[in-house]
Amino acid sequence: MRTQYCGQVTAANLDQIVTLCGWVHRRRDHGGVIFVDLRDREGLVQVVCDPDRADMFTVAESLRNEFVVRMTGKVRRRPAGTENANLTSGEIEVLCHEIEVLNASVTPPFQLDDDNLSETTRLTHRVIDLRRPAMQRNMMLRYKTAMAFRRFLDAKGFIDIETPMLTKSTPEGARDYLVPSRVHPGHFFALPQSPQLFKQLLMVAGYDRYYQITKCFRDEDLRADRQPEFTQVDIETSFLGEAEITALMEEMIRSIFKEVLDVDLLAPFPRMSYAEAMSRFGSDKPDLRVTLEITDVTDAVKDVAFKVFSGPANSETGRVAAMRIPGGAQLSRGEIDEYTKFVGIYGARGLAYIKVNDISKLSDEGLQSPIVKNLHPQALATIIERTGAQNGDLIFFGADKTKIVNDALGALRSKVGHEKGYVNGKAWEPLWVVDFPMFEYDDEDKRWTACHHPFTSPKDEHLDLLVSDPGKCLAKAYDLALNGWELGGGSVRIHRADVQSKVFSALGIGDEEAQQKFGFLLDALKYGAPPHGGLAFGLDRIVTMMTGAESIRDVIAFPKTQRAQCLLTEAPSPVDDRQLRDLHVRLRQKVETSVEVTKD
Amino acid sequence: MRTQYCGQVTAANLDQIVTLCGWVHRRRDHGGVIFVDLRDREGLVQVVCDPDRADMFTVAESLRNEFVVRMTGKVRRRPAGTENANLTSGEIEVLCHEIEVLNASVTPPFQLDDDNLSETTRLTHRVIDLRRPAMQRNMMLRYKTAMAFRRFLDAKGFIDIETPMLTKSTPEGARDYLVPSRVHPGHFFALPQSPQLFKQLLMVAGYDRYYQITKCFRDEDLRADRQPEFTQVDIETSFLGEAEITALMEEMIRSIFKEVLDVDLLAPFPRMSYAEAMSRFGSDKPDLRVTLEITDVTDAVKDVAFKVFSGPANSETGRVAAMRIPGGAQLSRGEIDEYTKFVGIYGARGLAYIKVNDISKLSDEGLQSPIVKNLHPQALATIIERTGAQNGDLIFFGADKTKIVNDALGALRSKVGHEKGYVNGKAWEPLWVVDFPMFEYDDEDKRWTACHHPFTSPKDEHLDLLVSDPGKCLAKAYDLALNGWELGGGSVRIHRADVQSKVFSALGIGDEEAQQKFGFLLDALKYGAPPHGGLAFGLDRIVTMMTGAESIRDVIAFPKTQRAQCLLTEAPSPVDDRQLRDLHVRLRQKVETSVEVTKD
Repeated sequence: MRTQYCGQVTAANLDQIVTLCGWVHRRRDHGGVIFVDLRDREGLVQVVCDPDRADMFTVAESLRNEFVVRMTGKVRRRPAGTENANLTSGEIEVLCHEIEVLNASVTPPFQLDDDNLSETTRLTHRVIDLRRPAMQRNMMLRYKTAMAFRRFLDAKGFIDIETPMLTKSTPEGARDYLVPSRVHPGHFFALPQSPQLFKQLLMVAGYDRYYQITKCFRDEDLRADRQPEFTQVDIETSFLGEAEITALMEEMIRSIFKEVLDVDLLAPFPRMSYAEAMSRFGSDKPDLRVTLEITDVTDAVKDVAFKVFSGPANSETGRVAAMRIPGGAQLSRGEIDEYTKFVGIYGARGLAYIKVNDISKLSDEGLQSPIVKNLHPQALATIIERTGAQNGDLIFFGADKTKIVNDALGALRSKVGHEKGYVNGKAWEPLWVVDFPMFEYDDEDKRWTACHHPFTSPKDEHLDLLVSDPGKCLAKAYDLALNGWELGGGSVRIHRADVQSKVFSALGIGDEEAQQKFGFLLDALKYGAPPHGGLAFGLDRIVTMMTGAESIRDVIAFPKTQRAQCLLTEAPSPVDDRQLRDLHVRLRQKVETSVEVTKD
Repeated sequence: MRTQYCGQVTAANLDQIVTLCGWVHRRRDHGGVIFVDLRDREGLVQVVCDPDRADMFTVAESLRNEFVVRMTGKVRRRPAGTENANLTSGEIEVLCHEIEVLNASVTPPFQLDDDNLSETTRLTHRVIDLRRPAMQRNMMLRYKTAMAFRRFLDAKGFIDIETPMLTKSTPEGARDYLVPSRVHPGHFFALPQSPQLFKQLLMVAGYDRYYQITKCFRDEDLRADRQPEFTQVDIETSFLGEAEITALMEEMIRSIFKEVLDVDLLAPFPRMSYAEAMSRFGSDKPDLRVTLEITDVTDAVKDVAFKVFSGPANSETGRVAAMRIPGGAQLSRGEIDEYTKFVGIYGARGLAYIKVNDISKLSDEGLQSPIVKNLHPQALATIIERTGAQNGDLIFFGADKTKIVNDALGALRSKVGHEKGYVNGKAWEPLWVVDFPMFEYDDEDKRWTACHHPFTSPKDEHLDLLVSDPGKCLAKAYDLALNGWELGGGSVRIHRADVQSKVFSALGIGDEEAQQKFGFLLDALKYGAPPHGGLAFGLDRIVTMMTGAESIRDVIAFPKTQRAQCLLTEAPSPVDDRQLRDLHVRLRQKVETSVEVTKD
């Protein structure tokens, strides 16, 4: 029906007759002539409709925005001075000979170039929203990225093997989405939270190198960057160790950034232990573009009069840490109040600070702060020395349980860094975070839980710690962080049944429970499981970063809202009672059967 | 950990030291020497363990089948006469220097080369089953095929856009799998039966060319070649008509067969109308390898005494048809009885036949059959003439409702054809079936239903028939058949809201119902929908054909049984009551919470 895409007509086509199909992006009448900006997925081209051709001109007069038309005409150079450097087709225009209206359009709910739309409007009219050039770019870049992953992995001998969507519920980790079985009353499938167990089974089955770009599901309350269904680039390989796997993955990410964005990421990516990342940046995915650092001062404040510090400093699970803000003495009272409120989100009950006016006077005189009088000179000297504070700086403090201090100062570091420009100017800062602990202690349940997942291998030299001191046991786990986001993470897995049993013991999972939940994996480990490991990347998040989109929802064609609804199709929706009867379930309470959509 | 794959060591590596990782496929002790067939996904290699190296030999003695080992040694030529032409590595062997046992294995539940395993055994121990070379080949070929689709579509400017898995239930067609919403009590998501509506929305949104290789779900009682979740290669394009779409898809299928199997499919694929296919072959996906044909004789038997023929011949919905079996007079009574039983599966109440002994005598004398005396000579002459029967042939008859006649004779045609060798010897017989009717009449519900789906466009010249005579209205729909299987099918869609409304009317779907079920599509059609159409191919089925596998389950890594269970993970399974409470549903009846697996 057409000779080429609108966006691809250029001066190379001068004097050619072209036929184009697309949408009327804009129509302008100027000096008795009608100008149509015709749009398709590759861009815009200007079509000129001259009254000389009366039939054609009559059709041109009937055109409205978003009409679908087929236009035939001759490519000519635009008059000097009217070129548009923003368009690939900006040097030329098409002198129209013939127009066919393929479909009319009622007036769209909004203009495509309106940048002040609410997300509710955009998601309700998603089809129109998806026409916007920014969204088209996002979808194209997403596709390019997924294909770059595939091409790299294919070249390295990885094969895509599909794992089931209807699988078994394992009430661990996040909440499952459940699917009632019709054939087996009272039984349910679960949608996969990840293909973790299946990819391990494929390694045991000898497939050697596996990947899959696949949907995963978590029925959790949604934060800004989460979706109920999300897409994972899932990878597993046999006979490689931690170093080889991370090197291969790093090569992959570097090649994808090069191919899609023409960006050369730093090589090799720096590596940092989990312990160091938490200590210096309060985060296991620190944004290394931010130049601010956190300094531990726990030992220095054990014996100060200030209970807010000495309490956590003397607790086994507490931490006191400082973060120097160079030149931060300029911060206003209002700004400090705002930051205090901000760290409250992370559980901090306050935000102590010292303005450093004159480091030669370690007292009320040189240090401006409500807390200085409660800290003895030795403590103050250590704080100043360790943070490297200079006159004119400000030091923020966190003092609480270690997790709260890290979360609060880690988040504050990013916020202050980006808002106040404490950044190094680099566009991309990748970082491998390694040497994760195997377990973290759950204070509420009084038991150890897996930091990564229960199939993660401990370091070879830490096998004994599984029993003697689980808290000190490190894992062969690794995360790839980029600009403060976790791009992906993974681990070398346990391939020996005896080690897997020990890990289950450490987690307080008994033999019977383990057999019931993961029996098929434990069985598989007995039949010659190879050493294996892998990684999963969050595709939505990677593409969000690569496009610079504001939200993960801008890189998903048909996303759900934060209340897990599709505003376009109005899913979820009530269903017929007959459908529920077939599935052997009933509603707990009678629910209104009218469709009700929450706009949020 | 290794220098290459086991299966890839060849004479090119002579005298090299190689390190290999894999599974002990077989161990033989012969003349004081141990031979290990070491296996990985690329194949086998023979490793020779000589008692000269005592430490290594001790380890070799401990090896059992399916142990995972790492072996280092020197590649040497096999002694003359011991080469194995079946192996890529068959000219060489590896003289072992060192063995490391990476993991032991208990005795596997079956030998990998045991070809007499029940499907229950195979699916229960799927991880071991997946190690079998035939299964590895199937998975590899599946991957190659999927990648060949991607490469072709990518080169043609199609982009993969992901559509939602958690979507809206539309109680049409097959039964939905439902997913209860936690956030919206009493509301449910449905898993997609296909991305049909979303791909049309993407066309309206201007993405021009879309594809996706994605899971679809139907909660139906399973036939042999069906799975609850199956994989579709889903394609849609704008601004192309029926001829261009089928030509492009044909080019794709041809390029995939070439790339994956090195097979040149016939070009161009023949085309046949639905009406002709049903009339001549009793099927809309006829197996053209079978040379038998069905001949209509309805008009010739309207006035015969034989009520079994004259009844259907005089009914508007009836058909009488004949199928000549050349040389079929040889068929035994027992064989004919078996065929009679077979057509009973399709609802036929009998299988009339005539053995043609002497066509010069159109009576009991020349024609051997219980029915001849009830057919007058004119009818017999027409039957003989139309079928082209010769002496020694047999003619089978179908006389019933048209659907029963077509189903029964169509199936009989394939069965007799393959069992008795009425085949043309070609390996692949592709066929486009086109000109499908828009609607078929549902006798039970007394209404028209959509043959394809309600978004299929009628032929341009048949728009008036939508109202005046829906039964005569043909659709822009097309199916690609191969060797009697439907590889895929699709249609040009309706892009105008007024035509869509007329189709809904013909289907008896009122405005309100249409708005409630498909409102978002109807809305989209108003805002400038381009002409568009597409197709979906069943990947599982294509790969089953390409591999020559016996069952669709042999090309799926982790399939469900025909009772929709995963024998490996024992899904579906009971879930905690707390999970159901979270989802606002309860079971209709108390169900045993022990895991119960039906072996079938």
